[in-house]
Amino acid sequence: MHLFYTPDIQPQHKAFILSEEESKHAVRVLRLPAGQQLRLVDGNGGYYTAVITDAHPKRTVLEILEVNTAYGKRPYYLHIAIAPTKNIDRVEWFLEKATEMGVDEITPIICDHSERKEVKLERLYKVAIAAMKQSQGAYLPKINPTTRFADFLGGDLIGQRFIAHCASGEKRHLTDVMQPGGKAVVLIGPEGDFSSTEIQQAIEADYRGVTLGNTRLRTETAALMACAEVAILNRG
Amino acid sequence: MHLFYTPDIQPQHKAFILSEEESKHAVRVLRLPAGQQLRLVDGNGGYYTAVITDAHPKRTVLEILEVNTAYGKRPYYLHIAIAPTKNIDRVEWFLEKATEMGVDEITPIICDHSERKEVKLERLYKVAIAAMKQSQGAYLPKINPTTRFADFLGGDLIGQRFIAHCASGEKRHLTDVMQPGGKAVVLIGPEGDFSSTEIQQAIEADYRGVTLGNTRLRTETAALMACAEVAILNRG
Repeated sequence: MHLFYTPDIQPQHKAFILSEEESKHAVRVLRLPAGQQLRLVDGNGGYYTAVITDAHPKRTVLEILEVNTAYGKRPYYLHIAIAPTKNIDRVEWFLEKATEMGVDEITPIICDHSERKEVKLERLYKVAIAAMKQSQGAYLPKINPTTRFADFLGGDLIGQRFIAHCASGEKRHLTDVMQPGGKAVVLIGPEGDFSSTEIQQAIEADYRGVTLGNTRLRTETAALMACAEVAILNRG
Repeated sequence: MHLFYTPDIQPQHKAFILSEEESKHAVRVLRLPAGQQLRLVDGNGGYYTAVITDAHPKRTVLEILEVNTAYGKRPYYLHIAIAPTKNIDRVEWFLEKATEMGVDEITPIICDHSERKEVKLERLYKVAIAAMKQSQGAYLPKINPTTRFADFLGGDLIGQRFIAHCASGEKRHLTDVMQPGGKAVVLIGPEGDFSSTEIQQAIEADYRGVTLGNTRLRTETAALMACAEVAILNRG
């Protein structure tokens, strides 16, 4: 069944009008007729079954048949702060795969060894929407503006805090020290790793150093490994 | 330190001559002089420290200083049989990431719902070498020729056997039913999943049905999730 992303819909709605762009897609491109059922997701857990009552090519009218307000809700909230890679394709790949596996919030962070200092959020947002729809999910990860590492550490964060780095020192596996449930943030550094100053600053800000395994992982692979570890840790 | 892939080197070698292509790369491109140390990997666990004794642009001569014959050896052997995706980039991405996380053998399998029936192995081989070098690993995954699903099931396979599918029925998580260590093979289906006939055939061939989580994963994401699960399961 066709899935549409409609962030403006509310659980109390009995009817809904698709935007001009979505109406055109539904009626002109997909040629969906009146009486056709489809699904809507709001990116915030809302998952709606609807039926077309007026197949208008600019303002398609839908009747809402069924609502689930926490469709596929995960028992945890994972925030990944990742230093964007020089080749932005790698961040986009991460975002797509992380949206499939499960991630709730992403912040691009600029670190001492970062080669890339800017990220086009609009593009990442589109990738996340496409991945959410592709995986038939109802939760869209929140994508924050690019933030400097020190500012990120100084921000108001609730939950467990981890920094994945390659420097020596005692480090446990993420799955061994993270508690299931609740909120958690994991910091993933650039290709040249976090600087020793950054690692020290993070530890002073109550971040715990963790390893994601013995092999050397690229930035985006490490970030995805963290998503996989947290998903596995939180299985019932 | 620069890393070269030299599949022909043997642990008993005291000296080694780089191929014409690698010699050119070392001496002409990287401009490495005599006295420069570098590393060689043979793709089979061999990890060598060497020094250039003659920086010849066509046959660079190296003296071997140190040998490790099982560098970064994993305590398990993972074979992923995956239905190649229509867009081959997705398989290449999986191969790169899986090589970083840890995978030992890959077989492209042609299934009832496969959109792609052919794979250029030469290209996959190059991706795997690049990923091994990038992650400073010494093991190159073995890439088998494309095989029909039924032929794969009928093959001579030793170890634990799993099929990840989306059909209903009792399925456990891979990490809950797999024993750490030893050999294992995990079958990953095409975008349209394995057919019910294929699932039945696999179960008759002693494959156990498993799930990789509650979310809907693309083929290459599912295959990578399997690699992550097996890596986590096998941690000491």
